[in-house]
Amino acid sequence: MKVTYWSDFACPYCYVGETRLHKAIESLGLADDVEVEMKAFELYPDAPREVQGTTLDRFARKYRLTRAAARQRIDSISAMGRAEGIDFNYATTRNTNMFDAHRLTKLAHEQGNTRFEELCFHAYFVDNEVMSDHAVLRRLAKQAGLPEADVERVLSSDEYADAVRADEREAHSMGVNAVPFFVVDGKYTISGAQPIEEMTRVLTNARDAALAEDTTEGGACGPEGCAI
Amino acid sequence: MKVTYWSDFACPYCYVGETRLHKAIESLGLADDVEVEMKAFELYPDAPREVQGTTLDRFARKYRLTRAAARQRIDSISAMGRAEGIDFNYATTRNTNMFDAHRLTKLAHEQGNTRFEELCFHAYFVDNEVMSDHAVLRRLAKQAGLPEADVERVLSSDEYADAVRADEREAHSMGVNAVPFFVVDGKYTISGAQPIEEMTRVLTNARDAALAEDTTEGGACGPEGCAI
Repeated sequence: MKVTYWSDFACPYCYVGETRLHKAIESLGLADDVEVEMKAFELYPDAPREVQGTTLDRFARKYRLTRAAARQRIDSISAMGRAEGIDFNYATTRNTNMFDAHRLTKLAHEQGNTRFEELCFHAYFVDNEVMSDHAVLRRLAKQAGLPEADVERVLSSDEYADAVRADEREAHSMGVNAVPFFVVDGKYTISGAQPIEEMTRVLTNARDAALAEDTTEGGACGPEGCAI
Repeated sequence: MKVTYWSDFACPYCYVGETRLHKAIESLGLADDVEVEMKAFELYPDAPREVQGTTLDRFARKYRLTRAAARQRIDSISAMGRAEGIDFNYATTRNTNMFDAHRLTKLAHEQGNTRFEELCFHAYFVDNEVMSDHAVLRRLAKQAGLPEADVERVLSSDEYADAVRADEREAHSMGVNAVPFFVVDGKYTISGAQPIEEMTRVLTNARDAALAEDTTEGGACGPEGCAI
């Protein structure tokens, strides 16, 4: 089985959603049977590389709230993350550009490494790292076990820029305008950080369909012919 | 609202599915509110440009059936099309390469023209035209109202080849391996030529979600911020 999902490191619900997805997969005993691929969807593609402030600053400004009111709003999101066991510090995240983190995620994916993306989420939401900082990215890449030479090559070039943009065009062309957005086996979708029960339900459906000889209810044709 | 769907002119269920989709859209009075975009998914990308035989020939050979048994199988598919009011002649379709028809569909789409793809389906399944034949494609393009100069430019070059291949990569990367496959508003999917009632149900869900202030059940973030 395969789960493709569009996501951004700047998106708190993406971290929550990814965590729930993995819990749902584990609870079904499907950890070895499901390949999970993250695709890029930058919420703020134009964000500068220099940190402009924290999410608390941004919320207060954007919604014209007192800092106390802004914090309350943000904390309701952090609480969702904490409920999943993540030491979520959303208010103090340092807003910046995520493009290079996405490019390195492509490198990681090519090497079958999903650890890097998890470390990125953790670095941003728990440790409030500056994710556009190459020193930070180098450290996370090393921790994830990505070969240093590859990482340097990517960071000193625009390698994988096209792949990141292609993910975003793909989402746009399907009308996806919010993340996380999950596609399971190219047939089922999960929109947003749904509860684990809902994710489990969708994964179970997909597993059962994959086990059945005819995986579609409606008539469909594949390279091997049409189901009649 | 937007419906994106992967499809091939060689796919009988795609023609049936597209017809049902349009009926479902009309029955809901949504004809002016839904943009439908076809994406390419060639079932037989390696099919030669010269016709090798009919679908009846192919079925008899592939499934080692007598021609009578092959015809019976095929007729059950044709019957689905006929039930939708299409004068379906699947048995006598002339198998060939659909790449250029897909490239011209891209040109049509750029011009906001969806008539061309409908004429292609009709030409193949009802009139049993040879869809790789440029004379046939020119005629259909003219009938659809595509500018002659544009059509000639596309047919005498490899224009839109990348766009067709990109559609197919996109489907592949999501694990879509059978068509038709519909994505509604980037959130809901319809796999195969589902009954009109099912399509109506999904479109209704999508419409209601589009009307609701918060379009997602799970938490999600978009460029404008995160739904809390």
